[in-house]
Amino acid sequence: MSRGCAIGLDFGTNSVRAVVVDADSGEEIGTGVWNYAHGEDGIILKSGQPLLARQHPADYIEGLKCSLKDALQEASGCDAFSPDAVVGIGVDTTGSTPLPVDSGGEPLAFSPEYCDNPDAMAWLWKDHTGYAEADCITRAARRLRPDFLKKCGGVYSPEWFWAKALRCLRVAPEVFDSAFTWVELCDWIPAVLTGTASPDDIKRGVCAAGHKGMYNPQWGGYPDEEFLASIDPGLAQLRRTLPDAAYDISSSAGMLTSEWARHFGLAPGIPVAVGALDGHLGAVGSGIAPGTLVKIMGTSGCDMMVSRMDEDIPDVPGLCGIVPGGILPGCFGLEAGQSALGDIYNWFVNSLQPGGPEAGTHQALTRGAEAILPGESGLLGLDWHNGNRTVLVDQRLSGLLLGMTLHTTPAQIYRALIESTAFGARMIMERFQQYGLDVERVRACGGIARKNPLVMQIHADIMNREIEVVRSSESCALGAAIAGAVAAGRYECFGDALARMGATTEHVYRPDDANTGVYDRLFAIYSRLHDVYGRKGCRDGLYDVMKDLLSISEAVKEGIAPL
Amino acid sequence: MSRGCAIGLDFGTNSVRAVVVDADSGEEIGTGVWNYAHGEDGIILKSGQPLLARQHPADYIEGLKCSLKDALQEASGCDAFSPDAVVGIGVDTTGSTPLPVDSGGEPLAFSPEYCDNPDAMAWLWKDHTGYAEADCITRAARRLRPDFLKKCGGVYSPEWFWAKALRCLRVAPEVFDSAFTWVELCDWIPAVLTGTASPDDIKRGVCAAGHKGMYNPQWGGYPDEEFLASIDPGLAQLRRTLPDAAYDISSSAGMLTSEWARHFGLAPGIPVAVGALDGHLGAVGSGIAPGTLVKIMGTSGCDMMVSRMDEDIPDVPGLCGIVPGGILPGCFGLEAGQSALGDIYNWFVNSLQPGGPEAGTHQALTRGAEAILPGESGLLGLDWHNGNRTVLVDQRLSGLLLGMTLHTTPAQIYRALIESTAFGARMIMERFQQYGLDVERVRACGGIARKNPLVMQIHADIMNREIEVVRSSESCALGAAIAGAVAAGRYECFGDALARMGATTEHVYRPDDANTGVYDRLFAIYSRLHDVYGRKGCRDGLYDVMKDLLSISEAVKEGIAPL
Repeated sequence: MSRGCAIGLDFGTNSVRAVVVDADSGEEIGTGVWNYAHGEDGIILKSGQPLLARQHPADYIEGLKCSLKDALQEASGCDAFSPDAVVGIGVDTTGSTPLPVDSGGEPLAFSPEYCDNPDAMAWLWKDHTGYAEADCITRAARRLRPDFLKKCGGVYSPEWFWAKALRCLRVAPEVFDSAFTWVELCDWIPAVLTGTASPDDIKRGVCAAGHKGMYNPQWGGYPDEEFLASIDPGLAQLRRTLPDAAYDISSSAGMLTSEWARHFGLAPGIPVAVGALDGHLGAVGSGIAPGTLVKIMGTSGCDMMVSRMDEDIPDVPGLCGIVPGGILPGCFGLEAGQSALGDIYNWFVNSLQPGGPEAGTHQALTRGAEAILPGESGLLGLDWHNGNRTVLVDQRLSGLLLGMTLHTTPAQIYRALIESTAFGARMIMERFQQYGLDVERVRACGGIARKNPLVMQIHADIMNREIEVVRSSESCALGAAIAGAVAAGRYECFGDALARMGATTEHVYRPDDANTGVYDRLFAIYSRLHDVYGRKGCRDGLYDVMKDLLSISEAVKEGIAPL
Repeated sequence: MSRGCAIGLDFGTNSVRAVVVDADSGEEIGTGVWNYAHGEDGIILKSGQPLLARQHPADYIEGLKCSLKDALQEASGCDAFSPDAVVGIGVDTTGSTPLPVDSGGEPLAFSPEYCDNPDAMAWLWKDHTGYAEADCITRAARRLRPDFLKKCGGVYSPEWFWAKALRCLRVAPEVFDSAFTWVELCDWIPAVLTGTASPDDIKRGVCAAGHKGMYNPQWGGYPDEEFLASIDPGLAQLRRTLPDAAYDISSSAGMLTSEWARHFGLAPGIPVAVGALDGHLGAVGSGIAPGTLVKIMGTSGCDMMVSRMDEDIPDVPGLCGIVPGGILPGCFGLEAGQSALGDIYNWFVNSLQPGGPEAGTHQALTRGAEAILPGESGLLGLDWHNGNRTVLVDQRLSGLLLGMTLHTTPAQIYRALIESTAFGARMIMERFQQYGLDVERVRACGGIARKNPLVMQIHADIMNREIEVVRSSESCALGAAIAGAVAAGRYECFGDALARMGATTEHVYRPDDANTGVYDRLFAIYSRLHDVYGRKGCRDGLYDVMKDLLSISEAVKEGIAPL
């Protein structure tokens, strides 16, 4: 077989990364990164609305052009590379990041009328404005379609497709009415690359559809119109624009158009794989397999497992989704996650910056935190600064820290914040195990996994597991490239592709016996706080405390006396 | 009557203040301050033992000399003043701050053997090392002498006399055995001034004895030997060195010695009033009377009320003491307080210093906090960074903050810390009221009351009360001077003395109707957290969480695996 390359395109929260990968070895031979130009680090915010997070789709197009050009440029410095060697392209994006498009498949934000309207842009995964709408969908499903909920952890999240569409319908009906349909970003990029002009022809990926859109072949695809109409007739109308079938990443979404081929100096007709969410393709790039928990550790956290489809799998409360083919074709994909991980450490450094610009850096705080023994500070936190995705599926939760004395130091708080995220990670792992999904291996990728030994050692100690850090710095883009290679027919199946192209192990963090005992005790306390604040069942519990404070805050900001 | 002056000596946590006051008008005509030389701001700490806080008694003598010399020097610039005009001297100190003394009344710390031994120094009020010993005393009293507890809020505090003596007995028996007796600082200073060499002759003040030493005429003074022996025979031995009677501040402890008179250029034989605790004499200086709550707001907080002795008064759970003559002769004195107030704001500024030395100041944070509406931040805290004195009487509690998001700012946290202390203040006021002590007026003194309008307005809004700030910057020393004037016979009674010498009102903070409603709601949430973490009764409560974390921390620091 001749030498071949695959391209992976990874549309992240703040930037696009393109990689050119050797389709035989998985070696990255070219990389390009482009930071989004709009808003704050690519995120469009609105003052007084901390839950809002949007992106301008123009950034995606510009980012695609610039990052891939740079990646190909770098690859061209490699002797073995030639543009003709590119056999396939794969795409991953954040999600659920849906955007409203017109009948020609153009984002509404590209029209002069809507170019400055955040409601007409892409609704970024971390946008939580639709919390009331999500609640409304959860209640309707609980009443009418309980099965829908069982596959998405029991609660529909404000981060997901239908909650965002419903929120737009309610607060910006003119935008909603102007849209022909809504498309997930991971479906829209392949449509752009393959020149799929009609929204009816856009191939929807089962990954986003299943994990975020309540799509499941078991009940015939997306939720039925009757159910959606019971929430709002507008949603039923939106449903009519969605196809009946969605595809896994072994499928091709189409061929690269000659215009794009010319633009990049590539051959036209290169297959473009059906798109998927970044975490899910990151799990693929990191070598996911039954029994392996893949943790993607960045600003937020994603925890992925797969399970053979010939084995029975229970519904797991709190998981974001159990989707056939959602991660790896032929397996159930199971997704969990933490709404904030590195974002919490970044908040402490950037917003609190204890001691100022020199003392308050990650480096300085890490040095201080390394010198503190587990349990020594007396501090314990809840890692809910951006809500809780798994296992509580509740965005109306917030951060907590307790145990402060007049002697508490910034380094102690920094360590407690790291520990709180690791307790959250253990909570997720234990949930998988409680429902029969044995976690035999833990593999980690993402910026934190590769760059932060303290965070990783604390995770190994608290989870009491070896954690294998994968070698690739771009495992999402690598996963996308692998999908591109499979869609191009370079490999029979993902198993074969992963054996050749999947990321190897760079480092293993091993739990320190001196720490695991103390952390077991602290985790027991974390679990109690978790339940008292997070679950309705507790007597004298504080389930509504964080929610009440958020409601009061919102009412005050809107000038309404909270009663 | 000829012009007269009175001297007030105020031995605070970090410094001594002396004032010379016009005994007719209360006008301060001379002030002197001396900062203690030992330790950190006068407090001797021990690394790895955050609960320990001691003071070297040499600082008291040096502070007495320097501050009074300066005060007299300043007063001498006043035409009307002459050294002969000084009619009386009063003394207040922190407390319970007991020190072990030998049979000559000398502090053990003055001997070469013990001069560097913190256990032989004064055990400062905020020393919490005796928490287990306090618990032991509480349990013994609950079993054998329940009445003892009823008058001190139901729980004996580690900050108090017997807990400290017992702690010393257990951890430094050689020090305990070398001591002839233990004397409260507020009793020791008058003994020094009046040359009372034999410890048997030291007049003990009912203020410290009653509020901190379980002294009550109802059961014949200090606790009986049998009870103390049931805890430890050493305590019974200590009891035998204590007198049967204690005196209120209208009594004289004796006359100024000729040595001291010569040293200061005063007439010998000036009456020195029996000493009392600083908060209590601060309440006197601020014009305490039945129906008036006096708040002393500094690094920690003291909340004082008095009640006529001809009226029945119930036992109030959680109060530090109900003592006949404890504050004002002829009235029951009721003491409550907050273990940390300004100390919490100082911790945030000094230890966290968000944004560095310029952004992280009180001034900058106050500016930011002023712009935040009540309820807007979504934050809520528990003000227990130094434990909870009233109403839970539990030093094994710690600080808590919840509601953090990725958008939380330092100014929001600063405001939430201030609000948490004001919720704590309201909790105390409501406790007084629940037990029939109507709070008709609130008067405030101390550094925070006079210097921090934001803190005071938040207190007025949260307590929903007008707060009158007294004019004197030295209300404790003023109260001491008033006691000196009364002890000298300058006035028949404190009522007369206060009418002439008591501090006037400088400013009144009035609750803002726009804020009280939101704060009522937040206070309800604070109350729930208060009970869930602070009381044993709650089902699924978190009563042991903060205590467990402290125990784990202590075990880890001592190198013991916590199990």
